[in-house]
Amino acid sequence: MAVYTDVSVEDLSAFIADYDLGELLSYKGIAEGVENSNFLLHTSGGHFILTLYEKRVAAGDLPFFLGLMEHLAARGLNCPQPVKTRNGTTLGTLAGRPAAIVTFLEGMWMRRPDAKHCAAVGEALANLHLAGADFAMKRVNALSVQGWRPLFENCCDRADGVQAGMRATIEQELAALEKSWPRDLPQGVIHADLFPDNVFFLGGSLSGLIDFYFACTDTLAYDVAICLNAWCFEPDFSYNVTKGRGLLQAYARVRPMSDAELDALPMLARGSALRFLLTRLVDWLNVPPGALVKPKSPQEYFRKLRFHQNVRSVGDYGIAAKELTA
Amino acid sequence: MAVYTDVSVEDLSAFIADYDLGELLSYKGIAEGVENSNFLLHTSGGHFILTLYEKRVAAGDLPFFLGLMEHLAARGLNCPQPVKTRNGTTLGTLAGRPAAIVTFLEGMWMRRPDAKHCAAVGEALANLHLAGADFAMKRVNALSVQGWRPLFENCCDRADGVQAGMRATIEQELAALEKSWPRDLPQGVIHADLFPDNVFFLGGSLSGLIDFYFACTDTLAYDVAICLNAWCFEPDFSYNVTKGRGLLQAYARVRPMSDAELDALPMLARGSALRFLLTRLVDWLNVPPGALVKPKSPQEYFRKLRFHQNVRSVGDYGIAAKELTA
Repeated sequence: MAVYTDVSVEDLSAFIADYDLGELLSYKGIAEGVENSNFLLHTSGGHFILTLYEKRVAAGDLPFFLGLMEHLAARGLNCPQPVKTRNGTTLGTLAGRPAAIVTFLEGMWMRRPDAKHCAAVGEALANLHLAGADFAMKRVNALSVQGWRPLFENCCDRADGVQAGMRATIEQELAALEKSWPRDLPQGVIHADLFPDNVFFLGGSLSGLIDFYFACTDTLAYDVAICLNAWCFEPDFSYNVTKGRGLLQAYARVRPMSDAELDALPMLARGSALRFLLTRLVDWLNVPPGALVKPKSPQEYFRKLRFHQNVRSVGDYGIAAKELTA
Repeated sequence: MAVYTDVSVEDLSAFIADYDLGELLSYKGIAEGVENSNFLLHTSGGHFILTLYEKRVAAGDLPFFLGLMEHLAARGLNCPQPVKTRNGTTLGTLAGRPAAIVTFLEGMWMRRPDAKHCAAVGEALANLHLAGADFAMKRVNALSVQGWRPLFENCCDRADGVQAGMRATIEQELAALEKSWPRDLPQGVIHADLFPDNVFFLGGSLSGLIDFYFACTDTLAYDVAICLNAWCFEPDFSYNVTKGRGLLQAYARVRPMSDAELDALPMLARGSALRFLLTRLVDWLNVPPGALVKPKSPQEYFRKLRFHQNVRSVGDYGIAAKELTA
């Protein structure tokens, strides 16, 4: 949570003059999003989110992210919609950074999601996968299996300082995943970061998905595995089969999974756990002095990885495979 | 800028059930205010600011701050107004902290204030002083002259590490101010922290004042001196006489100053510069590991202190004394 770049009233007024948003009434930096600077913007035209893209986001990827949000919103998915200037563009420059304005989504993210929330996320994820099926742009997932070894090499020397035995565990797991990573499963647009803080609820129902800045073209079932990790463990890191069952069942009702996807799910879940373990470990070991963001502990995903290593089949996630196929 | 304490949807929903604010629609932590956690709250009743008071604010002072905002708003000053529960209270408990909801004020703070903004602040400060005259509650200024030596003792050993000669300069200045601090000038409610980020403008006019959490009962002209320091220096720390003239003239048009106040102004400005130098120095030298707030550099106020030490009379601030008296 941070605002890395502040914006002056004069610069922001000049920026929004290209849009049909009316007069600027207020803007406040919001403490959400660890990659970019976000402002809640109020103009006489309504409420919006202004995002300044910081250096961790590649400028070349922005047309993919903004185009995807437009595409999904046009297909009825409730997500932020890029606002266009009078010239029809969605991407500009503000305070020396690429910047965009998107619509504001009402709703709150659940700090303590329950099984009903997990089912709602499963359903929304499947709808996202279906809505993204005809999105024409592609983006390689830089944080899939081929991206993990460079991360490991960045932090392996100090991993055991975080937790004894972490280095060897990661090294063995990485070798196993590189060897056996499933590459022939159905591909498409995945969100790749659908954690609780990116899912809004209102009045008990899911009201929208946000933060598409890790979205990419990858294995659809890998996105399911990310959600299992992000939603179905308790604060003590124990896996909750009721939540897992709810999530998987709701997903498969909208998009039934193939036998190959279900067979691969434990491996995909291991990979997903390793991906977040590695990025958290790198962040944890590389906190710059005066950092505005408190890194998340890597231990959580070390524990989750251990759990998935002991999973025999999808049944261990709380539901029989036959309930998830068409 | 930070959110120190997060709030769950369940806890916040229970909290606002005591108010006539309708249904909770969204809330976002905002990156403003270094002392407390602030959220922008949207309910079916409108937009509000929710503040959780962190440990740097004494709970015993909260009735003063909230009572003052009510008092000033009732006298026409545009400032956040505490929202009352159905039981008529303005202070509750949320996430284990004292908490209050205040009205949302439109407007933006000026990152690069000009002379017109300085004049508007001078006028608003005088109006605040007049509106506060009949406020019945008192609060001692813990950060006035009697509070500076303890701050100095906290940081004097390391002051020269920040800038050579800083320790001796502060020590001499502190002794001089303790000896000659003006104690018989008109007193009243002062804001005590009216920096640019606490003053909102809309369409070229001042639209409101916020953040009364340093307000106290103290010398009115000391508040003017704080504003001279906060508003009338350029980014290179040079004093701008046009801005100073505008601020002082606009203030005195609403509340003429006495000869004694004007004679004391250079001394009050030195004191104000020392107060912010000391608190910034202490914060600078005591950044906790993993801090969410980046401390402001103490050098700025060291330079300002040096400037005021060379001021002979109020005329050096850009305006003749006789223009400021009744």
